[in-house]
Amino acid sequence: MSRVACIGAGNVGRAWAVVFARAGHEVALYDADPGVVTGQALPLAARTIRDLHDAGLIADDPASVERRIRPAASIAEAVAGVAFLQESVREDLAVKQAVFEEVGQLAPPGAILASSTSAISGSSFLGGLPGPERCLVAHPVNPPSVIPLVELCGTRWTTPKTLEDARAFMAAAGMKPVTLLREIDGFLLNRLQFCLVAEALHLVGEGYCTPEDIDTVMTEGLARRWAFIGPFEVAHLNATQGFQGFFDNLGAMARRLGADARTDYAWSPELITAIHARLAARTPVTAITDRQQWRDRTIMRRRALDQ
Amino acid sequence: MSRVACIGAGNVGRAWAVVFARAGHEVALYDADPGVVTGQALPLAARTIRDLHDAGLIADDPASVERRIRPAASIAEAVAGVAFLQESVREDLAVKQAVFEEVGQLAPPGAILASSTSAISGSSFLGGLPGPERCLVAHPVNPPSVIPLVELCGTRWTTPKTLEDARAFMAAAGMKPVTLLREIDGFLLNRLQFCLVAEALHLVGEGYCTPEDIDTVMTEGLARRWAFIGPFEVAHLNATQGFQGFFDNLGAMARRLGADARTDYAWSPELITAIHARLAARTPVTAITDRQQWRDRTIMRRRALDQ
Repeated sequence: MSRVACIGAGNVGRAWAVVFARAGHEVALYDADPGVVTGQALPLAARTIRDLHDAGLIADDPASVERRIRPAASIAEAVAGVAFLQESVREDLAVKQAVFEEVGQLAPPGAILASSTSAISGSSFLGGLPGPERCLVAHPVNPPSVIPLVELCGTRWTTPKTLEDARAFMAAAGMKPVTLLREIDGFLLNRLQFCLVAEALHLVGEGYCTPEDIDTVMTEGLARRWAFIGPFEVAHLNATQGFQGFFDNLGAMARRLGADARTDYAWSPELITAIHARLAARTPVTAITDRQQWRDRTIMRRRALDQ
Repeated sequence: MSRVACIGAGNVGRAWAVVFARAGHEVALYDADPGVVTGQALPLAARTIRDLHDAGLIADDPASVERRIRPAASIAEAVAGVAFLQESVREDLAVKQAVFEEVGQLAPPGAILASSTSAISGSSFLGGLPGPERCLVAHPVNPPSVIPLVELCGTRWTTPKTLEDARAFMAAAGMKPVTLLREIDGFLLNRLQFCLVAEALHLVGEGYCTPEDIDTVMTEGLARRWAFIGPFEVAHLNATQGFQGFFDNLGAMARRLGADARTDYAWSPELITAIHARLAARTPVTAITDRQQWRDRTIMRRRALDQ
C-alpha cells in the first residue's frame, strides 16, 4: 500500500480520500482552510465509510479505514513520501496553478500528480512545474466514493507510462477508468450529460413537456437500459443484425434527430428559476443534504447487488 | 376489464399484448401475416409472461395470462367490442394510413385508437378516418413488456379527454405515461437518446475515445444516478442551493458544452461498421437474441427490486 495525498477537502476531495483509504492506502488530507478538514471532511468521510460498510462495499473494519485518513497541516506535510496525489481544489485557474507549482517542488519526483478539474483544461495548469510528464487529469463523478467512473486525460506533456500507471492505480482502488485519447473540453461524461441537458432545457423551454416528464423519460425509460448497457450496446441489441442493422434501419432517423437537437438552446434565467421552483417543491433546499445521502445510499445498494 | 386489440405482432406489438394481458384485459392479436401470430408472437409472449412471473412482476398464474391473448384472423375480428387499440405495424406511412382507415371504419366509435409510431408524425396518418379525436400516439420503449415508459402525444384532432383516458388506461396497466404538450419529431425519449448518441459518435469518430469508453461512461458513471433520478434532479442534488445554485455555478460550462456538442456530426458508414465490429466481437449477431433475453431479465429483476 502507498501514501496518497488529497489536496482540497471539499465534497470531491473528501470522497477521494475515502476511495484511497478504502483501497488500503495511507491518505494525507490537506485543505487551505484547516477547519474544513477536521470540522467537516473527516466526520463526513467517516459517515460515508460506515455507509459503504453497511452496504457491503467495504470488508475492512470501518474504524481502521477511517484511521487511514489523517489531516495534513501543509502541502509539504501532505506530499511527503506519496506515490499518488489527487488535487480537488476550487475550479479557479490561478488557484490550481499555485497548488501545482508548490506540489511540483515538494512531491517526490516519481509521484503521479492528478487533478480533479472538470471545467479547466489540464494543459493550462499542468505544464509549468518540474516534471509535467507525471501530471494528468483524473476527473471523477460526484461523489467518487460511490460512483466508480473516472476519466483520465493527459496533457501535451503527459507520458503514456503516467497514464498507464494512473489507470492501474485507479483500477486497483476499485474505480472504473476510461482514458481519453486526446484532450477535449468537458471530457466525455460532461459532454454527453450537458448535450442531453441542453436538449431537455429546449424541450421544456419551448413547451413540449414539463420538467418532471424529462426526469420520468430518463428513470422509467432510457436509464432502464443505460443502467447496465451503454448507448452503443443498446443499439446493438435493438436490431437482429446488431449495431450495423440498427443504423441501416434507423440511421436516417438518428441523423435527423441529431441535426434537429437544439443543444445551443438559449435558455433564459427565468426557465432555470421555474424548473428550480418545481424541483424545490418536492425537495426544498433545506432537504438537499438528506436527499444527497439517500441518493448515495441508493447507488451503494444497487452497486452491492452487482457484485 | 376490457377488450383490447393489438394490430401488428412483431417485437413491439407482441410486447404490448403482454402488457394488456398482464393487466387483465382480453387481447386480440392481429398481424397481416397470420403465421407470425401463431408461429412467433404467441410462444414468445408466453416466454415473456413466464419471465415476468419468475421475476415477481406478475402475481396471476402465467397460463391464465397467456390465455387472455388470442389470435384474430382479421382486423374486423380484432376490433370487435374493443375499448382500446394499439397499432404496431411497420414504420411505413402508407401501411399505417391503410390500417387506420380500416380500423376507423370497424372499431367501436368510443374506442381509443393508439399508434406505436416512433419516426412518423401522428398527424400524418391519424386524421383521415372517422373519429380522429379518439386517436393518438402511444410510443413505447422496446420492449414495453419490461420498460414502463410510454410517451403519449395527440395530433391536432385529439381531444384532451382522449389523452386523459389513454393516460389513465396506461397507468392502470402498470405503464408510466408522459403526455407531450405539443407534437415534435422523435417525441422526448428518442430526441434525448439520439442527441447523446450523435455526440458519442462524434467523440469516437474524431478519435477522443473508444466505443467501449462511451458505454463505460454511461454504465459506470452517468446512469449510476440516472437509473433512479433524472437529469434535472441530478443537477438539483449537485449543489447546496439546488438546481438554481447548480446553474449559478456551472451554467456557463453547461452552455459552453451544449454549444460545443456536435449532434449534427456527419458520421461515416465506415464508423458505424467499425463500431459494429467491436460490439460483435463481444456479442456476435448470432448471440443477439440470447443477449436480448438477458437484457430483459436484468431489467425485470431490477424493476422487481424497486417494488
